[in-house]
Amino acid sequence: MSNHKITGVFSAAATPLNADGSPDLGLFTEHCQRLLDEGCHGVALLGTTGEANSFSSRERRAILEAALKAGIPADRLLPGTGVVAIPETVELTRHALSFGVTKVVMLPPFYYKGVSDDGLFAAYSQVLETVADPRLQVILYHIPQVSGVPLSVPLIGRLIEAFRDIVVGIKESAGDFNNMRAIIAAYPGFSVLAGADPLLLPLLKAGGAGCITATSNLVADSLRTVYDHVHDEKRAADVDAAQARINAYRTLSNSYVQIPTIKAMVGLKTGNAAWRRTRAPLMPLSDADHAALSDAYAELP
Amino acid sequence: MSNHKITGVFSAAATPLNADGSPDLGLFTEHCQRLLDEGCHGVALLGTTGEANSFSSRERRAILEAALKAGIPADRLLPGTGVVAIPETVELTRHALSFGVTKVVMLPPFYYKGVSDDGLFAAYSQVLETVADPRLQVILYHIPQVSGVPLSVPLIGRLIEAFRDIVVGIKESAGDFNNMRAIIAAYPGFSVLAGADPLLLPLLKAGGAGCITATSNLVADSLRTVYDHVHDEKRAADVDAAQARINAYRTLSNSYVQIPTIKAMVGLKTGNAAWRRTRAPLMPLSDADHAALSDAYAELP
Repeated sequence: MSNHKITGVFSAAATPLNADGSPDLGLFTEHCQRLLDEGCHGVALLGTTGEANSFSSRERRAILEAALKAGIPADRLLPGTGVVAIPETVELTRHALSFGVTKVVMLPPFYYKGVSDDGLFAAYSQVLETVADPRLQVILYHIPQVSGVPLSVPLIGRLIEAFRDIVVGIKESAGDFNNMRAIIAAYPGFSVLAGADPLLLPLLKAGGAGCITATSNLVADSLRTVYDHVHDEKRAADVDAAQARINAYRTLSNSYVQIPTIKAMVGLKTGNAAWRRTRAPLMPLSDADHAALSDAYAELP
Repeated sequence: MSNHKITGVFSAAATPLNADGSPDLGLFTEHCQRLLDEGCHGVALLGTTGEANSFSSRERRAILEAALKAGIPADRLLPGTGVVAIPETVELTRHALSFGVTKVVMLPPFYYKGVSDDGLFAAYSQVLETVADPRLQVILYHIPQVSGVPLSVPLIGRLIEAFRDIVVGIKESAGDFNNMRAIIAAYPGFSVLAGADPLLLPLLKAGGAGCITATSNLVADSLRTVYDHVHDEKRAADVDAAQARINAYRTLSNSYVQIPTIKAMVGLKTGNAAWRRTRAPLMPLSDADHAALSDAYAELP
């Protein structure tokens, strides 16, 4: 991991809601602080798990500003700023930079499907050339099963080549270990971050830079154990146990629709039922599912 | 077609760009006027063909306002207002209504995939209950090959039931004739509009309400011929010839990436190369492809 510009355990933080559906900024900033206290190097707010694309630009800016106002250091926040229209990706990225938040996670424009690498290169290039801030560090966001828009290995290379020191990493949320290894092999020093928790340990062993995952909302301490001790043979049993615990949480969260379930599990962990709320089109778990989840949660390691 | 609230030939209007990538409002309003002059009952601006999701909210509002300022009557404009976040769908819908534009085409939130009918029903319901304007007439937008979010026949029924006189039609852009027939059979009086040009004639014969298509940017007169005379046996040859002409344009536009090709063909029709421009992630045709398109275009009926 020697020469990675971004490395560590980052949380794809969930976003709690008030009863009226607006973001619960107070509960959110408490959550961010807890994630850091539990060992996260940073909070990757406003991603897929954070329901970012269900919030307006105004709400997204308010969520980031609330975290900053609550005292979360700017260099520990990695907001998602990639939206469907280039001018708004520019605005959100500039907004983050205006507060000294220099690391962002950036989706490609995701409405049109089957677009060319030339088109995606043009889209990212226009954003980065318009923002034109040398402080910026961009983590590309590959989550084709949701966005519908994969980022190919050659496209990643073109972006690294054109924006060296700006395009520094990728969140690989396809969960495709072969793809992660291909990116690591092709672009030494480029940070490959696992978007799927079970791959943290194997990815770190293969030269990856860390993770940005959903289960970190629940077991950041275990992710941190894996990250800190992966190369220490004397701690191998601790590391394996931590990864097994992570995987157990992940398996349970994927027994229902993942994002509402992660949120419900944060609610069970913290004793705050407000976490059960989601914004449409995501729906909260039914009472029956929540009761079953609660029973299974109590059995987790 | 007796009791349809919305019926006719509507153009999924393309949006021309200036050299700096901003919408060319003057050329766009000229285009809208030409579409009406050529026979369109209305202009469905800011849809997929219009690259709406590549524009910011501010740009979308400016495009609609430009059409109104240029004198296009509000009741002949059907803007797309469905975006990925509910609060912004509300804002764009209210913006249209504030100018007396009461008919809108509404995508579901399209970031998350595999969401439940309950989630999509909740999303549309929250928009319509928040807008709460009895003038509003919504055309649902089913284009799963792009949005990734299909609208099922039962979901359509739930929305009609809950928002009678508001949810009045659907743009069926999957090009699935069996789906169109199923919707017509299930919901008499609900307007099914073809999103795929070759289906206009069969859909009208099957009780559909018209079309919102891309080829109308080029051959609105022929679409109008089909629409006006579909039930006149004496004009059957004219109608068949018009549909054949539409299909020839459609086939050529689909020989390359469709939206850039439709735009390039409008450029060839009007002698204005500005129409070749697209916004990333869509890319203009290469010079070689454009030259080949130009040759093929000259041979069209």
